[in-house]
Amino acid sequence: MRQILGASLGFMCDESFSIQRNIGVVVKKGKITQVGEYQALCREFSDLKHEFFDGCVLLPAFVNAHLHFEFSGNAVSFTYGDFGAWLDSVIANRDVLLGMDTLDKHICDCIDECLRSGVGIVGAVSSYGYDLKMLAQSPLRVVFFNEAIGSNPSAIDTLYRNFCVRLEESQSYASSSFIPAVALHSPYSLHHIFAKRVVEIARGLDSPMSVHFLESIYEREWLENASGYFYKFFTQIFQLPNPKPFYTITNFLEFFSDIKNAIFVHCLQARDKELEFLKQNTFSIVTCPRSNRLLCNDYLDLQNPNLPNVALGTDGKSSNNNLNMLEELRTALFGYKSNDLESLAKKLLLFATSNGAKALDIQSGEIKVGKNADLALFHIPELSSLHNPSQIPLHFILQAKSAHRVYIDGIRVL
Amino acid sequence: MRQILGASLGFMCDESFSIQRNIGVVVKKGKITQVGEYQALCREFSDLKHEFFDGCVLLPAFVNAHLHFEFSGNAVSFTYGDFGAWLDSVIANRDVLLGMDTLDKHICDCIDECLRSGVGIVGAVSSYGYDLKMLAQSPLRVVFFNEAIGSNPSAIDTLYRNFCVRLEESQSYASSSFIPAVALHSPYSLHHIFAKRVVEIARGLDSPMSVHFLESIYEREWLENASGYFYKFFTQIFQLPNPKPFYTITNFLEFFSDIKNAIFVHCLQARDKELEFLKQNTFSIVTCPRSNRLLCNDYLDLQNPNLPNVALGTDGKSSNNNLNMLEELRTALFGYKSNDLESLAKKLLLFATSNGAKALDIQSGEIKVGKNADLALFHIPELSSLHNPSQIPLHFILQAKSAHRVYIDGIRVL
Repeated sequence: MRQILGASLGFMCDESFSIQRNIGVVVKKGKITQVGEYQALCREFSDLKHEFFDGCVLLPAFVNAHLHFEFSGNAVSFTYGDFGAWLDSVIANRDVLLGMDTLDKHICDCIDECLRSGVGIVGAVSSYGYDLKMLAQSPLRVVFFNEAIGSNPSAIDTLYRNFCVRLEESQSYASSSFIPAVALHSPYSLHHIFAKRVVEIARGLDSPMSVHFLESIYEREWLENASGYFYKFFTQIFQLPNPKPFYTITNFLEFFSDIKNAIFVHCLQARDKELEFLKQNTFSIVTCPRSNRLLCNDYLDLQNPNLPNVALGTDGKSSNNNLNMLEELRTALFGYKSNDLESLAKKLLLFATSNGAKALDIQSGEIKVGKNADLALFHIPELSSLHNPSQIPLHFILQAKSAHRVYIDGIRVL
Repeated sequence: MRQILGASLGFMCDESFSIQRNIGVVVKKGKITQVGEYQALCREFSDLKHEFFDGCVLLPAFVNAHLHFEFSGNAVSFTYGDFGAWLDSVIANRDVLLGMDTLDKHICDCIDECLRSGVGIVGAVSSYGYDLKMLAQSPLRVVFFNEAIGSNPSAIDTLYRNFCVRLEESQSYASSSFIPAVALHSPYSLHHIFAKRVVEIARGLDSPMSVHFLESIYEREWLENASGYFYKFFTQIFQLPNPKPFYTITNFLEFFSDIKNAIFVHCLQARDKELEFLKQNTFSIVTCPRSNRLLCNDYLDLQNPNLPNVALGTDGKSSNNNLNMLEELRTALFGYKSNDLESLAKKLLLFATSNGAKALDIQSGEIKVGKNADLALFHIPELSSLHNPSQIPLHFILQAKSAHRVYIDGIRVL
């Protein structure tokens, strides 16, 4: 479908966060083919269907770069305030973790919640494949990370076979809006033989690889000293007599040395050496502020000059109160209390658009010729007449309540 | 009306944050006359109308202890990120400050927003009296702070007369749910002669006095050194040739030495000496986290042992994105990233209930015999079956979306 979409304000989501008034975007075959002033484009392409959204902001659909749809029923299931207490509560309540009888309903609600908050693209980590069909059939553009997890050497073959079956099944749904990929759960939870096999598969795929990395102080302590919470975790819960980490931090990172694109989720405890490795390899971090506060009482230091590309995610409902991307943005604005507000607002919006698309290796996330027409519209008429235009991004985050429209490949999905 | 209200969970909002399951509350003539187990109370008072709210939390209606309804149309009017830039933008846009043609509509929406977020009681600062009638006729219980502001010596008599007219008019509406009171705007904005007269009036009233106090570093710098932002403010904007502060901080506090009850709003820059003065006099601080972050990039240090009673407010829309008390609570939970989550959640809920009532000198804010039946109900069925009951207050803040019912004096107002 060819059309022109227009709006009072356009957030281009380029590096300098340009804002264009009376923006017009020509969409052909799902791509942005021209960007300019709406009326001028309407004159130039007078045969095209065109629609102007007065009082609206047009911007790239948000990218929620890390979440778990399979835990969509678990918003009130677990203990918050300490990563160890949280993981203990997850293990103790494995029976409620999935809640199979209502899982489809919960996943459906969460897909809807994503769309309503302006999200068009997700990096969805799937531990079991239970979310596969719903996500493949959803209007979202999905990078579907089949996750490998398991540390018991005697179970590796079974786990690996199961992983391969899930991956293959997801590949049967592959399309331009459903991209099968693989994820390693984390260095503390994945046997090195299993990890090695999965990484070999990842090398053959064209999609990014995802991993939870250095989320908690306990993980760092375990990998560096084989002690602390995880020592107790493996001895007491998994009854291992003398558990040892499978990797040093450096060893683990070596897995990624010839991976084209990888996203490291959380990284709260990553130090400059690790961050530099990510940056040199043009990998990305996905930061999930609410999840990080609820589990680890901390946020990623956004002022560290060694940060690589940073994207934003909500994580799953098992570590967040909802999947609303607007609330994630607002929480970050207030969570990073000392960061300059205006520049933080722009930075966060880039995390949630162009940086997210870059992390997931998707040609979206910017209003730019050649990009996918993955777009969102928000009706906030006050923004157009703001006395201080440099605060438009800030007031957008403060005021945006729900998306007015979401388009994927130029097709309206909300 | 006599009735029994029951709910699956009751937050008593006593100091130890007791939670009672299957709570029942007997309400007579607007007061709580008995608290116990719902079924037992129904048996004991079998003639009373009774209603049980399954899956609900019953708690005292929230107290929004500081807000400005007159700025209800100004959510997107001003510059955020620095107190000076904000005040400059307020002065530069005085014409939009009130927006008289739509003010009533905005105030009406804001009263509704308060109720929907479970607020039953407000400490409303009124600079002009434009919100008087709407608040007097609203279902909210209101402490109505007629505010004195003005530093120009030649205008004092006029300002004082205007203040007295406003106060008198508000007194004509006085009732148990509408309590006229007075407020000093702040030490930087109020001539000492004007302040002195207002304080004399306050001594004769039975209601608390309110004041914005040490909100910004600029205010402290001005009061201590007669320099900085406010020096520029008075010389450039008010064209005063050699401006001087009207008080030292100590001088200003002396006004309050024989005031029975006073609330000091913000206090971000208050030091231990000032906090101790407040504590010794059993005064209160009202903290407004979102406003504080947006204007001053900081939060009140809740771990300071010298803090007096602390209540919670949203401030007006001129320094917040909305007046939703639940969002204020959630923002604080994430804003204070290092504070222990469980105890912070309880603390914040007490700020918003019993501490707020104490600050405003209202016999509400607790589920306790003798208190006003100012109550709120929230439908969050997952809370009753939480695996870790000590996290009920935390998950309440995370999950509460809007009040199911609000009662003032036992009468349903939402």
